[in-house]
Amino acid sequence: MHNVKFSVVEKNSHSVTLIGMSKTLLVKNVHPLGKEAVDLLVLDGLIAQITPAGSTQNQADTVIDGNNQLLLPGLVNAHAHIDKNLIGQPWHRNELQGATIRDLVDYERKIQLEEGLSTRTQSKLDVEASIAAGTTHIRTHVDIDPEIGLTGFEGVLGTKEEFKDRLTMQTVAFPQRGMLINPGTVELLEEALKMGADAMGGLDPSTVDRDPTQHINIVFDLAQKYGVEVDIHLHEPGMLGAFSVELITERTQALGMQGLVTISHVFCLGMVDDGYLNRLIDQILENDITIMSLGSGKGDFPPLKKLNDAGVRLCTGTDGVRDTWGPYNYVDMLERIKLMGYRSGFRRDEDVEMLLKVATYGGAAVMKDDSYGLEVGKAADFVIVPGEATTQAVVELRPRSYVIKRGRIVAKDGALITD
Amino acid sequence: MHNVKFSVVEKNSHSVTLIGMSKTLLVKNVHPLGKEAVDLLVLDGLIAQITPAGSTQNQADTVIDGNNQLLLPGLVNAHAHIDKNLIGQPWHRNELQGATIRDLVDYERKIQLEEGLSTRTQSKLDVEASIAAGTTHIRTHVDIDPEIGLTGFEGVLGTKEEFKDRLTMQTVAFPQRGMLINPGTVELLEEALKMGADAMGGLDPSTVDRDPTQHINIVFDLAQKYGVEVDIHLHEPGMLGAFSVELITERTQALGMQGLVTISHVFCLGMVDDGYLNRLIDQILENDITIMSLGSGKGDFPPLKKLNDAGVRLCTGTDGVRDTWGPYNYVDMLERIKLMGYRSGFRRDEDVEMLLKVATYGGAAVMKDDSYGLEVGKAADFVIVPGEATTQAVVELRPRSYVIKRGRIVAKDGALITD
Repeated sequence: MHNVKFSVVEKNSHSVTLIGMSKTLLVKNVHPLGKEAVDLLVLDGLIAQITPAGSTQNQADTVIDGNNQLLLPGLVNAHAHIDKNLIGQPWHRNELQGATIRDLVDYERKIQLEEGLSTRTQSKLDVEASIAAGTTHIRTHVDIDPEIGLTGFEGVLGTKEEFKDRLTMQTVAFPQRGMLINPGTVELLEEALKMGADAMGGLDPSTVDRDPTQHINIVFDLAQKYGVEVDIHLHEPGMLGAFSVELITERTQALGMQGLVTISHVFCLGMVDDGYLNRLIDQILENDITIMSLGSGKGDFPPLKKLNDAGVRLCTGTDGVRDTWGPYNYVDMLERIKLMGYRSGFRRDEDVEMLLKVATYGGAAVMKDDSYGLEVGKAADFVIVPGEATTQAVVELRPRSYVIKRGRIVAKDGALITD
Repeated sequence: MHNVKFSVVEKNSHSVTLIGMSKTLLVKNVHPLGKEAVDLLVLDGLIAQITPAGSTQNQADTVIDGNNQLLLPGLVNAHAHIDKNLIGQPWHRNELQGATIRDLVDYERKIQLEEGLSTRTQSKLDVEASIAAGTTHIRTHVDIDPEIGLTGFEGVLGTKEEFKDRLTMQTVAFPQRGMLINPGTVELLEEALKMGADAMGGLDPSTVDRDPTQHINIVFDLAQKYGVEVDIHLHEPGMLGAFSVELITERTQALGMQGLVTISHVFCLGMVDDGYLNRLIDQILENDITIMSLGSGKGDFPPLKKLNDAGVRLCTGTDGVRDTWGPYNYVDMLERIKLMGYRSGFRRDEDVEMLLKVATYGGAAVMKDDSYGLEVGKAADFVIVPGEATTQAVVELRPRSYVIKRGRIVAKDGALITD
């Protein structure tokens, strides 16, 4: 235990003194992941003590009465596109034609230009709504291409800087409009890596770039050159997608990049036969590759329980929210878990709890945040939300009572706290 | 126009005088299904006048300022099980084993008995939450079997009576635990029809009752004998389900019961090949059969857009909510539309709007409510909800500002009005 003097600031246990970054924060009477109630003491942004509820005195700079609610670790959105939402804009009536990735991307760019959207503003609005919903970590893919250059990336970097004390953010340099088919893109991606992108992105090596081996080589070479991770979008279906998974695992192995590669969406894992799937799982495990899945509205998606039980690292995210791709997604990671459970046919609480782990510890692992977790010595990144059980919180989606980042109250009753 | 004298009761257009059943109600500045703003005058429970917003004087017993929000017709939950929820109970940790209908039903009964749940109480709680969410009509299937007899049905009838001025309800006598395999059930179903059930239910003629022709004959014979409709649950997959659809359409034709039969769920319509599906659609159209679908979390379900475009009558509902079958479903019909759009891969607003019609006009049609609709002369059953567009209301799921049933304010700001 840290040796520290506490002073009583607030005696009424139902009220809170919001003093921004507090030296000591005492959270009373919360149920970590639905388990027995505890009191939790935070010191300089770290969890200093966890004791049975009621065993701690009201002595801290700030005291929160958890009032028998749930305590969840900070929600981790490990796959976002905070540069491409329409939050705060008038409602966009979606009149998309076509259904290929190219159709979707072209429609998106058309609307972005027509509306004159600022990536800096939109990413800020996304982050504010995300924090209010309990998100403490975001890995975001950022569009980079010759038409917009690094404008979008710079906007997101500005938002990352603005919220650096309230949100852990990673950026992925992402060739949304293709790389080989879009001359000038590779140079811009490299520039983004020089500017501090945390990972090198990729996209459908066969169906978009028409040269899977070359696409994957460039992605991995740039990642190695700048010492960053790889995170590749893979929408390709069936055997074609599975071939891309093989190419990615082979390249990971050849370059010794085990533990540094994520494949996102990977719908093909829900499409191939069981025998082939088992071989792919073996390759994924051997190369410690993370699978990012947020399920899917209409189509197949990876079998989450099977992958989890096999020991595959999993993470999830919101994908783009309230954008031209469709109206359904939003920033709330608990809603994401609800949709993934619904789509997976999970009826039992223990299966929903598995998804909550994916959306918390799973995401923190892919973001390599060693300070993450509801344990003494870890960063005080957590969420207090009403509910008797975590599955109840997931399905009811009630406003978050408190969101804490590094010991600081960043949102209360569903609303961002602005200092 | 009706010839009526108005008296000014309330001049402040932002406030409302809640006087229960009002003779005249004026709703100002609302957008019917997102269209141009109107004022709407209600007289003795019926829509008496719809005029451009701002053209009406503040003269009515009750005035609501719609404040530029959306006006939706009352939401119609055409497939509910209000006898089997766990609303208001401590959170139930789901530990279901198995996945067949029989496993689900046995687990459900086990928990119901352990918890000592009252159907009268649970159905009341369901109805209260439903009204608060904008539902003005419910068709509910009610479990009837020798173990519980007519207890559940009597409980639901009590709730129907209690809420008769605030909700239009139909009951379906439903053999959830089988009919032929469960001696005594047929006699109880007939008793429920004598007591006023509005439709005769059925369930998986092959997979549950093991004698599809006999099952269907009994269902139709009882329906004919008591002059009620037919509404059959059909979960059977693929060609087996399709065969049941054929038997049902053939029986409908043989008995001249066109327009009086609903098949619910009918997952098989999403499983058979296109050629066979087209032949089934022809039979469904020829017999004016309604298809009730609420989509599906994991598995296949009917192709809603194809059916709608072919002219098939569609309706939808919540199914059982917060029950032992799984945690996801709840009473909000706008959430149901959101999930159906998500599962159908609908990105365009016009497709979501189609689903909203299914959840309103489609349900009212199957319930044969000729007084339904946002038109002069129709019953004043409607919902006021924030949003610029109906699709926005569907994805945001904000609390309903007002719910009106027959001209009476039955809910406000997401909460039931209790007189």
